[in-house]
Amino acid sequence: MSEFSEISLIAADWGTSNLRVWGMDHQGNVINRITKGKGMSSLMPSEFEPYLMGLIGNWLPKEGNAKCPIIICGMAGAKTGWKEAAYLKAPCPPVNKEKIIKIETEDQRISVSIVPGIMQKSPPDVMRGEETQIAGYLSKKPDFDGIICLPGTHTKWVHISAGEIVSFKTFMTGEIFLSLSERSILKSSVQSNDFDPTSFLEAFEDTYSNPALLSSKLFGLRAADLLENTSAKFLKSKLSGYLIGSELAGAKSYWLGQNIVMIGNDDLCVLYEKALKKLGLNATIENTQNVTLNGLKQACLGR
Amino acid sequence: MSEFSEISLIAADWGTSNLRVWGMDHQGNVINRITKGKGMSSLMPSEFEPYLMGLIGNWLPKEGNAKCPIIICGMAGAKTGWKEAAYLKAPCPPVNKEKIIKIETEDQRISVSIVPGIMQKSPPDVMRGEETQIAGYLSKKPDFDGIICLPGTHTKWVHISAGEIVSFKTFMTGEIFLSLSERSILKSSVQSNDFDPTSFLEAFEDTYSNPALLSSKLFGLRAADLLENTSAKFLKSKLSGYLIGSELAGAKSYWLGQNIVMIGNDDLCVLYEKALKKLGLNATIENTQNVTLNGLKQACLGR
Repeated sequence: MSEFSEISLIAADWGTSNLRVWGMDHQGNVINRITKGKGMSSLMPSEFEPYLMGLIGNWLPKEGNAKCPIIICGMAGAKTGWKEAAYLKAPCPPVNKEKIIKIETEDQRISVSIVPGIMQKSPPDVMRGEETQIAGYLSKKPDFDGIICLPGTHTKWVHISAGEIVSFKTFMTGEIFLSLSERSILKSSVQSNDFDPTSFLEAFEDTYSNPALLSSKLFGLRAADLLENTSAKFLKSKLSGYLIGSELAGAKSYWLGQNIVMIGNDDLCVLYEKALKKLGLNATIENTQNVTLNGLKQACLGR
Repeated sequence: MSEFSEISLIAADWGTSNLRVWGMDHQGNVINRITKGKGMSSLMPSEFEPYLMGLIGNWLPKEGNAKCPIIICGMAGAKTGWKEAAYLKAPCPPVNKEKIIKIETEDQRISVSIVPGIMQKSPPDVMRGEETQIAGYLSKKPDFDGIICLPGTHTKWVHISAGEIVSFKTFMTGEIFLSLSERSILKSSVQSNDFDPTSFLEAFEDTYSNPALLSSKLFGLRAADLLENTSAKFLKSKLSGYLIGSELAGAKSYWLGQNIVMIGNDDLCVLYEKALKKLGLNATIENTQNVTLNGLKQACLGR
């Protein structure tokens, strides 16, 4: 092994608010990693390369003949990201190697590519990053037919069949949760790190059976704090329950009678799993980092 | 008329984010007014009196025998306001003169009272300020039987019968609208001062008939901007429509087959009126300042 042969592939998930980077050897083992880099929203297009090189420059040889491939998924490919990677149109496979875009770089030691997101025409919907996680999952389960749910800021329900994304639906549940718990009248009522499964499920059932009451139930959390001194632990659990209840009512055409796989933040996946169980459904939770890395590696294979 | 007899009553609507004050002569004519004072959320309890006196001190005689009554409704009576005025419990008349609380003041030229808000035990709900507007409306229409809708940050639907608040329901619609349009991924897609009634009503019907799709429809606004370059005017109108559609589905037990009176911001009342019309309902829009002032005057009568 030569002096500079350790890192042979760099993979990055560059989202709106965070950057994760993995440096791998020629066998795909992760040697270096960065878990909390700057997200796309805090960088100008011209800042992406210098920022990334500031983080990973010392992973690379000072000079050499072979360029190190860097494969990126996520919002770095948005119109306001590093360079736009035009959406592919569903139905389609999650990743199409021929549509991965190349980026010109100042630094000649790297060869950067971005995986395009997926769009749906009607109803209009978009994803960037999730397609790569889905590809990672399908690389291990190529015959999977069912629903992949990716909970997060913008939770996605994705129908997969014959290796393709058939259709998908995004819910703003996570962003609404953050906004209400950090910057609304509910803020002082829901500050807790604890969780109460009973309150969560009660609230879940309330809005699952009557989603029109969502914004009224939300105000009820404030009223319960004022009138009954209900503790933040219960109110925060209810806030999650109300939002997920309304979402699962809206996503029914996706999950009904389907196999469900979940990819996302572990704590959040567990909440969705509890709610789905209440509806008589079993969900399998995947390791998000694994599927993301697998997806990015797949996107590089044979290129 | 003596030198200092002009102002004989001061009325104030002291909300979370704004203070309105009216100085009236002995016939109830408004002589002085302040429309944009500091709201309760930017003042400590000890700051209320000096702040108010800084605004209205020169409306009062330097000294005199008779104290000038100041009657206040709104969040000034909250636990974290000037002084807590404990909620009255519905069903009850909107204002009960015997429950209006007196405040000790440093300045001996004034006599300050606060109108208590109303609470509902089950489901838990609260109001502060709206009860005074309702009392103002009922002072002119004592036999009104029906629904008063007060659109705003926290829109309230109130069932009135026999001069009492029978029950009420609050929706966080206005706060969610502000939060999404000012601090979410939708922000850049909905910056417009224009309004498109067709988009509003289309969106209204979408979530009215399927409220579970609210948070998915909201993300669809962002996707429509990205994929179809839909202009902000249409998207902002749809944002209003989606939120009000979901609310009206949830408030159906209130408005069904009822007389509806609206009290609130004019532009917002007009939106609700359009939506209610689509459901075959006529609503009467009241002048908010008039009903607030009437309510505050009523609260003072005979005290």
